[in-house]
Amino acid sequence: MNTPTRHHCIRTMKKLLETIEKALHAEGYPSRPEGLYEPVDYVLSSGGKRVRPMLMLLSYKLYRDDVDAILPAAVGLETYHNHTLLHDDLMDRADMRHGRPTVHRRWDDNTAILSGDAMLVMAFRRVMRAGCANRERLLSLFARTAEEVCQGQQYDVNFERRTDVSEAEYLEMIRLKTSVLLACAAAMGAIGAGAPEAEVRSLYRFAECLGLAFQIEDDYLDVYGDAAVFGKRIGGDILCGKKTFLLVGALARADEATRRELLACLADGEMAAEEKIARVTSVYDRLGMAACCRAQIETYHAEARALLDALPVAEARKAPLRAFAESLSGRKS
Amino acid sequence: MNTPTRHHCIRTMKKLLETIEKALHAEGYPSRPEGLYEPVDYVLSSGGKRVRPMLMLLSYKLYRDDVDAILPAAVGLETYHNHTLLHDDLMDRADMRHGRPTVHRRWDDNTAILSGDAMLVMAFRRVMRAGCANRERLLSLFARTAEEVCQGQQYDVNFERRTDVSEAEYLEMIRLKTSVLLACAAAMGAIGAGAPEAEVRSLYRFAECLGLAFQIEDDYLDVYGDAAVFGKRIGGDILCGKKTFLLVGALARADEATRRELLACLADGEMAAEEKIARVTSVYDRLGMAACCRAQIETYHAEARALLDALPVAEARKAPLRAFAESLSGRKS
Repeated sequence: MNTPTRHHCIRTMKKLLETIEKALHAEGYPSRPEGLYEPVDYVLSSGGKRVRPMLMLLSYKLYRDDVDAILPAAVGLETYHNHTLLHDDLMDRADMRHGRPTVHRRWDDNTAILSGDAMLVMAFRRVMRAGCANRERLLSLFARTAEEVCQGQQYDVNFERRTDVSEAEYLEMIRLKTSVLLACAAAMGAIGAGAPEAEVRSLYRFAECLGLAFQIEDDYLDVYGDAAVFGKRIGGDILCGKKTFLLVGALARADEATRRELLACLADGEMAAEEKIARVTSVYDRLGMAACCRAQIETYHAEARALLDALPVAEARKAPLRAFAESLSGRKS
Repeated sequence: MNTPTRHHCIRTMKKLLETIEKALHAEGYPSRPEGLYEPVDYVLSSGGKRVRPMLMLLSYKLYRDDVDAILPAAVGLETYHNHTLLHDDLMDRADMRHGRPTVHRRWDDNTAILSGDAMLVMAFRRVMRAGCANRERLLSLFARTAEEVCQGQQYDVNFERRTDVSEAEYLEMIRLKTSVLLACAAAMGAIGAGAPEAEVRSLYRFAECLGLAFQIEDDYLDVYGDAAVFGKRIGGDILCGKKTFLLVGALARADEATRRELLACLADGEMAAEEKIARVTSVYDRLGMAACCRAQIETYHAEARALLDALPVAEARKAPLRAFAESLSGRKS
């Protein structure tokens, strides 16, 4: 991509992000009842990359330029995503999100439950306000996806108690928990713009692949990342015994002795954090998990690229979506 | 109403209730992921009077007989109602519901949060499956109502910390927390049947009045009811210091000394339950709160009756809805 096109893409992305931020706060919130909408505003003001609304608008812009028509749906999807963060943080008893106390820490558990419920309802109401084509289809894809995300979250919870999770099960869990929402975003953009069915399906799978790659990269960076760049403490997943792609893959690949060593190490409540991270990482190293992750990530990226390449839309229209997809995987290892 | 008509109404109500129960369980639930749908099935199997779907179908039957067309929406509204019970029970730390342990007691808090979220999504999906007229209007009324119910719940929470709640504020809280959902049910039935706008509005207010009367009667029966008939322990609201219509009304009517006496009595953690109930009841008696409740209930019933009387629909078609409305207020004091 030559320099002007690259600048054009960055400008397009920046403008869309501004449009989304403005729309997210354009409506304001009722001042009453006290306590219901403050947490909603708090959560939706905490920034983030707005990946889902960006994907929806960039996908819409493959076909049409009047993004205002689908903007309420983009805001609705972001509202939905933040509802899941709010309730997931409560369930995980997480203290911080985007550098600020989580809602149940800043307020209390009941506020988190009720404001989260309100956000889920508001998400539907916002999607319903879209002025684009095929609103009923948008809504029905969104609703199906929201149920799938609940399924993914439940699988994640169930995996905590299991040591026999297969790679296929793990991939299906992250697909449901995080990737289908990205896929839904991209497909909604195409549906709202009136794209042909085959292209809607391509864009769905395109974003699903991006989501799968992103999630595995997240697991990878927790072990092999640069803490300063990654923005999280290295080894956090190891310390909390999270079923990541590395752990699931290592348990599947290891011989029985290594498997026992790995599980004993993770279950050891006495072991110092640094030692635990070092020992688990050394098992991952022995089993070649870093290369295995990178190969899996590259497989998904290649599939995503191929789908976007094959999409019968002018290359100039694809450039911003392509640039955005690349920016998602640009995190330093 | 003569005997054959009465029998006809009872038969109609019984048949509709069977239709609803069957539809609630017709679809079945995915077996996986384990743990997500069991609580949903558990909650939706626990019986109850199915007041909201009954109101929707009876309202629809004022105009049309093909209730199957709107049945998914009726099931959706019942699913939504049970979502609110599930999350409210969690927030109130209630142990029992319909004679069975609540979801967070039988499973755990996180299961209650996530299954409750799934039910809210499923409620939307079920309403979307209605095959009747004006589906988009149904959905948008349902979504608006669901947000209002969150507002009502938040007002209720906020009232716990206040001693200066006015009667008007109390009535607005119960309107939002419980009555708008009954109103929504009746209006959805009319909308789905293609009723004229003015009649939709009449039926909305009709059911809203029923809901308001029912809620005040609930408060009344907690103090003046017959425990055996009411099915709850008398004085429960007094013991937990709940802001009921009686308490709010008594605090508004009392002179300063009585007000202080009432608040001190309710705040007294040492006082025996029987004494507390007796003393608060004696204040209510002195202030004439029983008559005051009965008058307010009758006002709402009269408004509901007048609205149904004035509805330009054949009397024979109104009879089942009228009988159902009467059955809602038939509880013995």
